[in-house]
Amino acid sequence: MMRSGQVTIKDIARELGISPSTVSKALKNHPDISVETRKRVNDLAKKLNYKPNAIALSLRSSRTKTIGLVIPETVHHFFSSVISGIEDVAYDAGYNVMIFQSNESFNREVIATTALLDARVEGILISLSRETRNYDHLKNILKNGVPVVMFDRVCDDIKTDKVTVDDYEGAYNAVSHLIRSGCRRIAHLAGPPGLRITDLRRNGYLEALRENRLEFDRDLMVYCDNFNQAQIRTKQLMNRIQPPDAIFTVNDFTATGVIKSLHEMRIRIPEDVSVIGFSNGLISQVTYPTLSTVDQHGYEMGQVSVQLLLDRLYNRQAEQPFIHQVLKTELIIRESTRRTRKNS
Amino acid sequence: MMRSGQVTIKDIARELGISPSTVSKALKNHPDISVETRKRVNDLAKKLNYKPNAIALSLRSSRTKTIGLVIPETVHHFFSSVISGIEDVAYDAGYNVMIFQSNESFNREVIATTALLDARVEGILISLSRETRNYDHLKNILKNGVPVVMFDRVCDDIKTDKVTVDDYEGAYNAVSHLIRSGCRRIAHLAGPPGLRITDLRRNGYLEALRENRLEFDRDLMVYCDNFNQAQIRTKQLMNRIQPPDAIFTVNDFTATGVIKSLHEMRIRIPEDVSVIGFSNGLISQVTYPTLSTVDQHGYEMGQVSVQLLLDRLYNRQAEQPFIHQVLKTELIIRESTRRTRKNS
Repeated sequence: MMRSGQVTIKDIARELGISPSTVSKALKNHPDISVETRKRVNDLAKKLNYKPNAIALSLRSSRTKTIGLVIPETVHHFFSSVISGIEDVAYDAGYNVMIFQSNESFNREVIATTALLDARVEGILISLSRETRNYDHLKNILKNGVPVVMFDRVCDDIKTDKVTVDDYEGAYNAVSHLIRSGCRRIAHLAGPPGLRITDLRRNGYLEALRENRLEFDRDLMVYCDNFNQAQIRTKQLMNRIQPPDAIFTVNDFTATGVIKSLHEMRIRIPEDVSVIGFSNGLISQVTYPTLSTVDQHGYEMGQVSVQLLLDRLYNRQAEQPFIHQVLKTELIIRESTRRTRKNS
Repeated sequence: MMRSGQVTIKDIARELGISPSTVSKALKNHPDISVETRKRVNDLAKKLNYKPNAIALSLRSSRTKTIGLVIPETVHHFFSSVISGIEDVAYDAGYNVMIFQSNESFNREVIATTALLDARVEGILISLSRETRNYDHLKNILKNGVPVVMFDRVCDDIKTDKVTVDDYEGAYNAVSHLIRSGCRRIAHLAGPPGLRITDLRRNGYLEALRENRLEFDRDLMVYCDNFNQAQIRTKQLMNRIQPPDAIFTVNDFTATGVIKSLHEMRIRIPEDVSVIGFSNGLISQVTYPTLSTVDQHGYEMGQVSVQLLLDRLYNRQAEQPFIHQVLKTELIIRESTRRTRKNS
């Protein structure tokens, strides 16, 4: 048995055969920990005369109980869902959430991180702007001892916890579904070149074609990720000598442009051309026909991201390896794609 | 001529025959003021040996150049537009924008205002949550000398600058358009009882009926402001012995539920039933048929709100009467309503 007065969280953990982080949370009566475990930990801590050290205490008293969030855009339903997931978990844990919108601007992103540090937030959640190629502002946050979790738009250059969705698999599943339903000439309206999600979703699309021995027709892949452009591109695609019999778009909003254009050309959906999007935003329920799509689980991404951040805050001393959590997507089949044997 | 050393902004203003606020802005090289006026002001200030007083200087040096924003929800396209309008003006003026989402919760709204004061924001823009009936947190902000501008969801009990949209007139115009196009039995899906916008939009609806000597059928007005409920309510309305020939909804998203339901019942839009929404969100362009609606000018509301706040910040000493600016709405006619002689 160790001497009292020098007892640490690790000692209690070893004694009870549980992790130090569980002990730390139990001592704070964190709701993640079962009532039983909290009782065992607190009983032992009392028995051993465990005292949290002075530095930890002083740190705690200066805490703002605020988490900072930097998000590219609030207008996308996906990011709104992420915010909701973050806030629901954070407020339950007694934290509030201070939000800055970068509006896809690198400059605003840098200003936002500085303002968050000035406001003494305890941790920062960030999804990078499209422009961000330099990461000094993130390094600066970490240098200040403030933990960071990156979500959705992450980078490899910085070591933090990360949460992304399996974009490759989501695209692969969407295109596989089209192929199973009998589509053979599948077009892809892709995101901007160079973005990680563009590459992953395109690669998922290509892999599904390859696996089903369908030839990739370069003319059927177009960089186009918005409503207005989609209407123009769809008309161009449908006026080809060999038009597509399905269109897979990088997001739902682009798919709505495709649908609008097909209506105008009196092309039936899904009988003549199937359409499938990506995101499962509110919009996918209101198109006519309703839109098949890939759910990105934005709300869950928010929850997981803030939980990883809270874990870092609850275990400031513990050096745990960084986690990159990849969430599974979910294929949502509605009316804009044809039935397959499996879902008919 | 006044003695130098005691020269104030008011003296310069009197001398040049312009307002003190213009002088104040000109001295800060504010872009609102013409280059010529700035030169005149700065030349005279130099000549008179004008010196900003020490208190003002010390205030300025402690400024965070941050504006706080409390918004009910980011998921609505309207509020996202407001945020964009606010940010574009604020960043141009050298301010950044710290956002808290109340998520329609009074408690979170109170926490948000406290956090904004702790972060020493220079001013606060707020749109009230649906739950807010007590305004002590707003009084507390004002007591701290931090100016407030309320927008969209405002209250009468607190004296601040306010920006709203003319909801009454917007609804009146929408329903008048339906009547001009030949509709006679117009249903209204209204917002939650007790909300200011519910009352104003309903009153605009009633006034348009009255003015055109159409009887108000109480059974055609239903409290219903969301997509799912709208589908149920529409079926109930259309199954009445005397169904409506038009439906005016309190927002666009509710209108999309109406449209979906009418499609399912094989009722033609607008030949059998016209549909008109309110907001002019992105969604109104992607429904089939596209949705006639009322534009709320969210982006402009954001711009005007933050400009009023900046005016207060630039003129801390000046006691100006509070302004309630009411923005005009705009009727947007798309495919879900019938042609009138005027727009055919």
